[in-house]
Amino acid sequence: MAQLTLNNGLKMPTVGFGLWKVDKDTCAEQVYQAIKAGYRLLDGACIYENEQQCGEGVARAINEGIVKREDLFIVSKLWNNFHEAHVVEPICRRQLQDWKIDYFDLFHMHFPVSLKYIDPEEQYPPPDGPEFPPGPASVHETWQAMEKLVEKGLCKSIGVCNFNAGLLFDLLKLVKFAQGQGLAVTAYSSFGPLSFVEMDLEEALKVKPLFETTPVQAAAKRVGKTPAQILLRWATQRGIAVIPKSNKPARLAENLDCCSFDLTKDEIDAISGLNLRLRFNDPVKYGEPHPIFDDFGDY
Amino acid sequence: MAQLTLNNGLKMPTVGFGLWKVDKDTCAEQVYQAIKAGYRLLDGACIYENEQQCGEGVARAINEGIVKREDLFIVSKLWNNFHEAHVVEPICRRQLQDWKIDYFDLFHMHFPVSLKYIDPEEQYPPPDGPEFPPGPASVHETWQAMEKLVEKGLCKSIGVCNFNAGLLFDLLKLVKFAQGQGLAVTAYSSFGPLSFVEMDLEEALKVKPLFETTPVQAAAKRVGKTPAQILLRWATQRGIAVIPKSNKPARLAENLDCCSFDLTKDEIDAISGLNLRLRFNDPVKYGEPHPIFDDFGDY
Repeated sequence: MAQLTLNNGLKMPTVGFGLWKVDKDTCAEQVYQAIKAGYRLLDGACIYENEQQCGEGVARAINEGIVKREDLFIVSKLWNNFHEAHVVEPICRRQLQDWKIDYFDLFHMHFPVSLKYIDPEEQYPPPDGPEFPPGPASVHETWQAMEKLVEKGLCKSIGVCNFNAGLLFDLLKLVKFAQGQGLAVTAYSSFGPLSFVEMDLEEALKVKPLFETTPVQAAAKRVGKTPAQILLRWATQRGIAVIPKSNKPARLAENLDCCSFDLTKDEIDAISGLNLRLRFNDPVKYGEPHPIFDDFGDY
Repeated sequence: MAQLTLNNGLKMPTVGFGLWKVDKDTCAEQVYQAIKAGYRLLDGACIYENEQQCGEGVARAINEGIVKREDLFIVSKLWNNFHEAHVVEPICRRQLQDWKIDYFDLFHMHFPVSLKYIDPEEQYPPPDGPEFPPGPASVHETWQAMEKLVEKGLCKSIGVCNFNAGLLFDLLKLVKFAQGQGLAVTAYSSFGPLSFVEMDLEEALKVKPLFETTPVQAAAKRVGKTPAQILLRWATQRGIAVIPKSNKPARLAENLDCCSFDLTKDEIDAISGLNLRLRFNDPVKYGEPHPIFDDFGDY
């Protein structure tokens, strides 16, 4: 299994199983099957509403001796309602408890967006929607609290998701554990609009599916792989990790096999050339007043 | 003179005189003439390399009884090499000394970019270029130091320039003096590529001058004003302040007269529709490794 080396020296698998939109009812089984199929990186989050079930799948795989805890690379993410420094650790501990493990390999700030705290006693995970007012925590406050999680051994590594360049550049002033040693990047939604078509996101419905584009089709034909594998290889060949999701065992195995062949530079460039500067996973497009990605031209 | 009300209750003129690229040799005279022509907002900065001369122009206008200090709204900006908390106040005091005044009406963080400190004894203002390594200060550190300037009476108001939405959203978590009461916006480079054509910026040379576009020409014809006045009114009519620069007295007077007429909604929309999502004033385009504006698609 191809691995990336993080700036703290730890290794991370290049291909993982993404847990977003994995149904609670089938999740434990899917996680178990993914591990059985060879997946070692599991990419979860509080807001995916399935961490307990993920934990069940992991526990079963460990109990059956398929893997040991240290063979797995378990990723989770801090949700927006829990950005205030004093709640970061209690929430992380709760997430660990759901996963039935005592550390995360990687724990991310899910968005650079702080929303008002909601007591887990009331509702956990919090509802995902525009109903919360902004919270008081800055990205720096949250990051510093996350650094403490590393010091306490609750996370081996920490990261951020959905940051734009300006925010990341500014945050890097603070990063104790990275200090100029480079960051690892994981791509989500490697199949482009696909994840968002089923959510009826207008912009996703309007664009041509990536699988059907000429550069992807041509490369697939040349190497004898599927369009999905081509898109995953486009990322992994450039040192970017991927976390595709699938409900189907055959697709699971196929997605995992995305480092066994190489694309040519021309093929990679042609796929890069498909860039339409679209961003689907933008809070504003879900009706939330958090313009974190674009400059003011769009608002 | 049309005014905006800042969130601290203070008033700011809607039209100001921009001091970027105003030549040191003529600056004192130009500032004096601008005040005589009716300008009350002067928009300066350390990096414009003319603050002493600005101060001479202001002093002359005050000495001649044309204005009192309190009639003026003087804006300056903290340069990137001075972002560390402990240097913010000494540098601000030096800038005030150059201006020969004891407070700024508005003091901005010029960019969300911290560069390595340079001792003013060595060179002041610092050279503007890619030769400096990044500095250690986060935007939050700098902003908190700027809040102290307000507490000490060295600035009446503080602000930021060249922030993208994500950075601003995050900084707002910290803003003591604004707390949800809204921010005032000043537009720079109201004439689009014009300021950058003379700097030979490739992207500025490639696009059609805004003055020559159909919506601007049509509105100018209808109301009997110049294209420059139309572009300034496009901003001021929407409550955005402007700070055009000109070396010519006639142009100075013309630019100041950009609130005496109204555009129709259709005219405003047509001008907005000219948006090409270009950003000229991007450190990356000057060869500096500070990707603060775009997301990763461009890099």
